[in-house]
Amino acid sequence: MAYHLLQHDRDGAALLGRALTQAVEQIRHCALCNTFTENEVCETCLDPERDPTLLCVVETPTDQLMIEQTLTFKGLYFVLMGRLSPLDGIGPKDIQLEKLVSRATDGVVTEVVLATNFTNEGEATAHYISETMKARGLQVSRLARGVPVGGELEYVDAGTIARAMLDRRAT
Amino acid sequence: MAYHLLQHDRDGAALLGRALTQAVEQIRHCALCNTFTENEVCETCLDPERDPTLLCVVETPTDQLMIEQTLTFKGLYFVLMGRLSPLDGIGPKDIQLEKLVSRATDGVVTEVVLATNFTNEGEATAHYISETMKARGLQVSRLARGVPVGGELEYVDAGTIARAMLDRRAT
Ligand SMILES: [Zn+2]
Ligand SMILES: [Zn+2]
Repeated sequence: MAYHLLQHDRDGAALLGRALTQAVEQIRHCALCNTFTENEVCETCLDPERDPTLLCVVETPTDQLMIEQTLTFKGLYFVLMGRLSPLDGIGPKDIQLEKLVSRATDGVVTEVVLATNFTNEGEATAHYISETMKARGLQVSRLARGVPVGGELEYVDAGTIARAMLDRRAT
Repeated sequence: MAYHLLQHDRDGAALLGRALTQAVEQIRHCALCNTFTENEVCETCLDPERDPTLLCVVETPTDQLMIEQTLTFKGLYFVLMGRLSPLDGIGPKDIQLEKLVSRATDGVVTEVVLATNFTNEGEATAHYISETMKARGLQVSRLARGVPVGGELEYVDAGTIARAMLDRRAT
């Protein structure tokens, strides 16, 4: 892309270069939730309409967006910017678990909602955070595992059916 | 297939014909659970190791098999052999709901576990059965809906994430 711009659109290349430099200079991590923002604290964290007693933990800003689109969560977020992955040498420090602990123990948060992925690493990360938070007296919840909306048992893997049976709910 | 056998393997055709005729003559619906069996009552319904207080409702014998493979359910089954589908003219009588009601109200069953599919029709069928059973004082549960095992939020549909958030569980 850079070569194409240099050959055919040198003005565009200059513009893009400035924009990228500016982004690198201006975009930082929100002091409260870690997501990308141009300010000290992001818009979501500053929104007075949100419920500050609920803190949802996600792996990435994209996951935060996925949840936002469902309109089912009115609390605040903490973006790990990763997940625990011992095999890749990613430990608690790399995903800033200390920052999460101090964020969650601000005296306002009462429930930590774990929305890490349902991969092995995401589940291990959720488990680790859950133990850490419960030791500090916080309520911890996890997004439900089960059969996806629209799913047919015939095409769902056995692990998911097993979980859906064990986690079955009273109607 | 029939033409192929007639041309190349007339003995095979004769054998297959006899086997199919025999199957049609011998295979019937279990008097208790509706699944296919060669006897009046199927092996599962007769198994003394199973918990007769739990009755799991599925749409098809295949769905029953999917659940059996997970080794998470030790109760008995009722196979609807279909699901409610008003648009196709399939009503409560077509899926033998009366037989299910008399099966579930035998005085031994205490919990009906709804494992119909998570399609619109499967959900509507579950809802209908749930109301019917609760009116008769039975406990009713539904397989959990949520994010499948191994699932990443980024690749899961919004409806499933919404359900997983609303149905989140304490850890
Ligand atoms: Zn923020
Ligand atoms: Zn049976």
